[in-house]
Amino acid sequence: MNFTKMNGLGNDFIVVAHFETLPTDAAEMAKRMCDRHFGVGADGLVFILPSEHADVRMRIMNADGSEAEQCGNAVRCVAKYAFDHGLVSRTELTVETGAGLQRVWIETKEGRAHRVKVDMGAPILGGQAIPLAVDGEPIVEHPIQANGRDFCFTGVSMGNPHAVIFVDDAATFEVDVWGPPLEVHEMFPNKANIEFTSVISPKEMTMRVWERGCGQTYACGTGACATVVAGALTGRTDRTVLVHLKGGDLHIEWSEVDGHVYMTGPAEEVFTGHWGIR
Amino acid sequence: MNFTKMNGLGNDFIVVAHFETLPTDAAEMAKRMCDRHFGVGADGLVFILPSEHADVRMRIMNADGSEAEQCGNAVRCVAKYAFDHGLVSRTELTVETGAGLQRVWIETKEGRAHRVKVDMGAPILGGQAIPLAVDGEPIVEHPIQANGRDFCFTGVSMGNPHAVIFVDDAATFEVDVWGPPLEVHEMFPNKANIEFTSVISPKEMTMRVWERGCGQTYACGTGACATVVAGALTGRTDRTVLVHLKGGDLHIEWSEVDGHVYMTGPAEEVFTGHWGIR
Repeated sequence: MNFTKMNGLGNDFIVVAHFETLPTDAAEMAKRMCDRHFGVGADGLVFILPSEHADVRMRIMNADGSEAEQCGNAVRCVAKYAFDHGLVSRTELTVETGAGLQRVWIETKEGRAHRVKVDMGAPILGGQAIPLAVDGEPIVEHPIQANGRDFCFTGVSMGNPHAVIFVDDAATFEVDVWGPPLEVHEMFPNKANIEFTSVISPKEMTMRVWERGCGQTYACGTGACATVVAGALTGRTDRTVLVHLKGGDLHIEWSEVDGHVYMTGPAEEVFTGHWGIR
Repeated sequence: MNFTKMNGLGNDFIVVAHFETLPTDAAEMAKRMCDRHFGVGADGLVFILPSEHADVRMRIMNADGSEAEQCGNAVRCVAKYAFDHGLVSRTELTVETGAGLQRVWIETKEGRAHRVKVDMGAPILGGQAIPLAVDGEPIVEHPIQANGRDFCFTGVSMGNPHAVIFVDDAATFEVDVWGPPLEVHEMFPNKANIEFTSVISPKEMTMRVWERGCGQTYACGTGACATVVAGALTGRTDRTVLVHLKGGDLHIEWSEVDGHVYMTGPAEEVFTGHWGIR
């Protein structure tokens, strides 16, 4: 079976595009292929499938065999693959995901997809809807205590719950120490992704993320979106911000026109492979 | 550049065989290609090169760009690759490594290399030679204390220093807790690999390893050899033992004929790939 290994800011995927429908053993394939020592190694196995409603359809199986409804980093990889391999010819396309149709725009460079912009939808700011243990809209700079230390968070859902915490220096912040107790804090009934962010200027931030169920990761697309929403809500930043993440940069715009958040970032093809030699 | 991804008990390597000599940028290649998110992902990049003195020559660049002189798991992969790809036609061959020539024997299955036996040389048992902070030969069941807990270790060098500690149940032993303080104990001037081993029968053991500079790994070939030497020296086991490791099994024989330790284990080809798409 041929595959292409891709990544979006270090969030890495095995991409396969020759199936018509999801194979019945997709979960088992993902577990075997995503193993980093005995398999190919990846965060997920992405199937690009034909769609009746969009240009392409994607389904993402996580390394543990569960299915992810959506992933901003994977959508960029899917768009790049579809464009570079001629599955689509336009630079504006729609991708069918488990969370609905997603609009994406491709920036090209030397005839190939270079960066991809994704419509991440409108942020959800109501406390109960995020969900938080407090209600009101928006929940901005709300006090929270973890292991005896006081923080303030701003709550944002981008389809998944985020708590954005502004700190003096995100680069040196002890994410591994404070992420775990905050993720499971009683304030977050469904747990939460925790973003630790420092503002460089109204147009530039550094963010590190503790992802719900994953721990510290290279990049979290919805987290970067939530962070810019929180930056704008608290008056710390503009609505268009360059966010520096461990795995690279994302350009985030919270549109005043339609209220949607637009994320622009890279996708890379690293190598092609053939799995199943004997 | 074409490559083959292989592993020996989960210790995984990118194998390239089309170079005549080590490329000048081998260290940089290893760092980029071994990265598990932005590259191919592996513990090391292995070059199979022509040799003037042996059937093939191997050079191993670690993921950090440093060169490893030797690695029992890599030698098995090199032997399998050389046999399966027709670089050699005999099942008994010699491999030139940074630590000298190594003899290997290939067991075939359906015309391909299935398991590989490697002559790991004679163990070094002198305290000063291992090196330990105590002298004498052998150093068997020597008391050692770490963080207030008493252990007994047997010292063995297989070219690198090992301290073998017999425990009641290696499977549940807290390797991550006791490995770190023992690795850097003043008893070991060059630090040491620490093996926590439980004996199932005189012919079978379970071993978990804390590798010097690496932490807990799937398998350590020299560690399995050291463990069987320690098992025989302390009368716990025979000289021929099946060792269960996290990544799979190794069959170890400490020969009474020549005093060498022979390690037999699997090597697997997982996928082939092409790196450097654009």
